[in-house]
Formats: sequence, structure tokens, C-alpha cells
Amino acid sequence: MINHNDMEKFEVTILGCGSASPTAIRHPAAQIINLRDKISMIDCGEGTQMQMRTYKISFQKLRNIFISHMHGDHCFGLIGLISSLGLLGRTASLHVYGPADFEDILQRQLKAFCDNMEYEVIFHPLQTDTYKLVYEDRSMEVYTLPLQHRVPCCGFIFREKPTLPHIRREMIDYYGIPNNYINHIKNGADWILPDGSIIRNDVLTLPPAPTRSYAYCSDTAYKPDIQPYLMDTDVLYHEATFSTEHTEIAKQTYHSTAAQAASIALNSHVGKLIIGHYSARYTDTAPLLEEAQKIFPATIAAQEGMTIQI
Amino acid sequence: MINHNDMEKFEVTILGCGSASPTAIRHPAAQIINLRDKISMIDCGEGTQMQMRTYKISFQKLRNIFISHMHGDHCFGLIGLISSLGLLGRTASLHVYGPADFEDILQRQLKAFCDNMEYEVIFHPLQTDTYKLVYEDRSMEVYTLPLQHRVPCCGFIFREKPTLPHIRREMIDYYGIPNNYINHIKNGADWILPDGSIIRNDVLTLPPAPTRSYAYCSDTAYKPDIQPYLMDTDVLYHEATFSTEHTEIAKQTYHSTAAQAASIALNSHVGKLIIGHYSARYTDTAPLLEEAQKIFPATIAAQEGMTIQI
Repeated sequence: MINHNDMEKFEVTILGCGSASPTAIRHPAAQIINLRDKISMIDCGEGTQMQMRTYKISFQKLRNIFISHMHGDHCFGLIGLISSLGLLGRTASLHVYGPADFEDILQRQLKAFCDNMEYEVIFHPLQTDTYKLVYEDRSMEVYTLPLQHRVPCCGFIFREKPTLPHIRREMIDYYGIPNNYINHIKNGADWILPDGSIIRNDVLTLPPAPTRSYAYCSDTAYKPDIQPYLMDTDVLYHEATFSTEHTEIAKQTYHSTAAQAASIALNSHVGKLIIGHYSARYTDTAPLLEEAQKIFPATIAAQEGMTIQI
Repeated sequence: MINHNDMEKFEVTILGCGSASPTAIRHPAAQIINLRDKISMIDCGEGTQMQMRTYKISFQKLRNIFISHMHGDHCFGLIGLISSLGLLGRTASLHVYGPADFEDILQRQLKAFCDNMEYEVIFHPLQTDTYKLVYEDRSMEVYTLPLQHRVPCCGFIFREKPTLPHIRREMIDYYGIPNNYINHIKNGADWILPDGSIIRNDVLTLPPAPTRSYAYCSDTAYKPDIQPYLMDTDVLYHEATFSTEHTEIAKQTYHSTAAQAASIALNSHVGKLIIGHYSARYTDTAPLLEEAQKIFPATIAAQEGMTIQI
């Protein structure tokens, strides 16, 4: 496995992969996305802040929290985390993205429990029924992905932005290009020799690593029409609350089976599938993994504390 | 130690003994009181429902939840627990006792997250600045205890009610008292012989075990004027957020030191002191325990999962 340095890091850490009923062995939904050492969170079930401590996730580097939907197992840990960030002396704003309906109860909780904090919580209402760019910085873009659940719900796609090209050191040396000009080269400039001839940028650089992407689909009924959005995603996390044996319950509760998650992965040509959001009835997730791998071999079963390189 | 059977059981189980900042090793405040197999909870910090599963506390037998004050480390787990009880198919009402201000935010959370549950959550507003009977059933009485913290806050005293007297089997046999009359004897009746002479009840019975009591004092500044209410309590849980070294911080934040907790225990002639609500700075609680034991030797340091007979 490639040992990414901080500038190349793009990884997801699973803090919780249980479903509605927490068990003694499994926490509700929460994940950490670390892209070039900037940290985002997806969903924040009860106990997430303790899981962050257990798995040594930086509180300070957390910038954005994306909430998929207003079921408790995806958001009951948020007010506790926000409150603890206040106690830790945070001053930088925290951005929370969630379904529009979430804003009212979040603001009321903030008022009741988090008065006088020294930092601001900025809520960004999401329209859950469209594929739409909702966040962008120098390193990444985040899109909503419309899912189908019992309440308004969206997934998220994290798309890395291209990094700058790599400098071909031997060419720089050959042409005697000074160090203070290298940033220009990285940003696309050509080099002009004393005789006026032009050394084109693509001679001086190598293209950057291809950009990577991560998609999070939880909670959702089997929904093949999301496949075009997921096409060629490097890593897809798709809920697999049930096994095929319980397809009918999955349908009734707007959840997916492991086989359905694998089918989405296969048809979207993703690089790797992570299944999770297991029903509390499965203490052993091996049968779910086996079911998915029959359809899509590059499947792994989420476990708490697991970090997956993207 | 006496092996209490269910009818004599009176015990407290510590689910969380941390303070405001949860750590990887310590959960925020929550305790379970089991009195004759009826279960009450005091405080409900984030993660309490997972702790109940870890320590195999019955969700079904839970009747009442007493919330001391509106700081997150004492109540952020409540909405998750309420929600899970709904998912488990509860139909019996759940009674929540807490500061009057808690009602509004609790109702709003219920509306946002717990619509369509098949059981009712009944809120009982508490006046936190008085000693007052707030709950009573056949087995126990619960009183509020005024504490001093940064927000309205009360402790709780659980007082066992007397059980019925024990029957002296040999006397019952001697006088040939029929089995269907024994309940009358237990409830205080005398027995009249054919010749009209009266066998007094106290000849036929032995007095029941003395009643027991448990007091919970967290969070609070050092407040000696609660001592009269605590007099002769069997077991006292008193917060000891800090050691004496940090007396000034304790004062500023309206918390107590281990020595102050021990002094309250000593002056109240309690049977046993449990200290807890440790600041996150103490990974090892031995120094706090040592400090308290110097003043009040019958002190134990709360640890998660510990059950103490009362």
C-alpha cells in the first residue's frame, strides 16, 4: 500500500458502523474523512466524540460535519461534540451541513446547552433530493447524492481536486532554472532560454496523481439510479443493513441488503466497496461480507477504528 | 457481604463517572438504582444506552429517570435512550424528572426525533432549590436535595420504605394459625385464640430489616448545609471533580474536591462514600481516593461498571 504523505493523504476512518439500535460492540454512524490533513465528519451518532478520543482523531482539525438525515443514529452525538469543542476552547467556526429541517432543533439545542461558546456553529441547509456541489475548498469538492429513506436523506461524494504537477528535477537542473521560478513552472509556466526558444511546461513536469473520490450512501433503499453519479468512484461506502434473507424487511424500512450494495458497486465500476450500517441482529458480519463479495469481490466489511486509504 | 435476594435488593451501578469532557476511558454521568428489581436512572450522559448494554442493565425494567441539571454531561444521552426504548417496542410510560427548564428542549427533541412512539414520556418539573418528596411508590421515596452549581441543580435521596415484618414461623405453627391469615399478621393483625385471649402481633413477627438510603450529590460546590438532609445515609455519592491542589478551580467552577466530599460524608455520619465525576485530568483516581480516605476511610472511588450494595 502506498504510504501517502500528508499532502497526498485521502482516507476514511470508521467511527461507527452500527444501525438504529446501538449495541455493546457497535456504535451508530460516524466517519472521518481526512484529505490532506483537513478533517471532515460524515454523520455523528451518539458517542462519536468518545470514539474520536479512542481512535485519536484530532478535534482541532475538524472543519465540517455532514449529516445525512435526521435519524438519531446519525446525529444524536452532534450536540455533545459541539459542546466539547467549546470546552476545549475552540475559536474557529464549525460548519454543519444537514437537511434543512435539522436547523431548527440544532439551534434550539445550541441555545439550551451551548450558550456563551467562543466559536460559531454555522449551519448550511441541504437540499437532499439533488446531486449538487455543497462544499468546495482548494483540496476538494463535496456533492450531495439523493438517497431514498423514510425521511429526507442524502449521501455525499467527496471529490479530490487535482494537485499541482510534479517537477522533473533533472530537467530543471539541465536548463538551470532557478528555484524561485519553480512555483511558476508548477502552475503551468513554460521556460524561455536566453536564445528565445521555449521549453514547454509538459517537458518540465509530470502530471499529478489522478484525483480520487469517495462516496457515502447511508441510509437508503436499493436505488440503482444513483449509479451514474457513483461511476468510477475509488471507494464507495454503501449501507448493508440486512442480508438477502431479509430483503423484504430491507424494502419496508428503506434499507439495502449486502447483495444490493454490491450490485450498486459493480454497476458503478467503483474501485472498492465498504459495507456497514449493520442491523444489530448481526454480531458476526462475515455472512454479509460473503454475500457482497460473491457479486463484487473488492468488498470490505467496515469495522470500528478501521482506516481505508482512498 | 449479604447476598440480597430480589425483594431485598438495593444497589447502585455506576455507568459513567467522568465529568464535562468525556475521555476514551470514562463516560459522563449516569447511574442505575435497582431497588427490589425496579430500576431508576440518575443522570444520562452521552453513551449511557451503550453502557447499559455493556453492563447488561434491563431496558425494560427502567421506570424513572432523574436528571440533576442541564449540563450536557448529565443529559445528552437521554434522547438517544428514549428513542431506543421506542425502537424496542416499549409501551409503558417513562417518567423523566428534571429541572423545569429542561422540559421545553426535551419536548422539542421528542417532536423532532421521536414522533410516533408507542409509549409516552411524562416529564415532571423539579424545583431544584428545596428538599422535597418528588417520587413515591410502595418501595421507595425520592427527595430532591438543593445543590449549588453554575445552573439550577439538585441531588437526589432515595429512601427505602420499610418492608413488612418477618413471620416467626415457629409461633405460627405453635398457635396453628392458618396460611390464609398470614398476610393479615404481616400487616399488623393480632391473633385471637378460641378462649378469647389475644396473641399480640409482636409475638408473631420480627421487625423488618432497617430501611436503607442512598444520596447522589453531583454537581455541586462544597455545600455543608446539605449535611442535615444526608444524616445517617447508608451510601453517599458525592462529586470529587478535583483534588485539594485545585481547590481554587473547584470553587470557580462550582465543583468539589475529594477532601470536601469526604468532609461532607464525615459530618453527615454516612455509612459509605463513593467519589466520582472526576476531571479528565485524572487518568489515575488513586490520589483522589487517598485524599478522601484520609478524612473518611470508608470511601471508595467510582469506576464504570461497579455495583455497590446499599
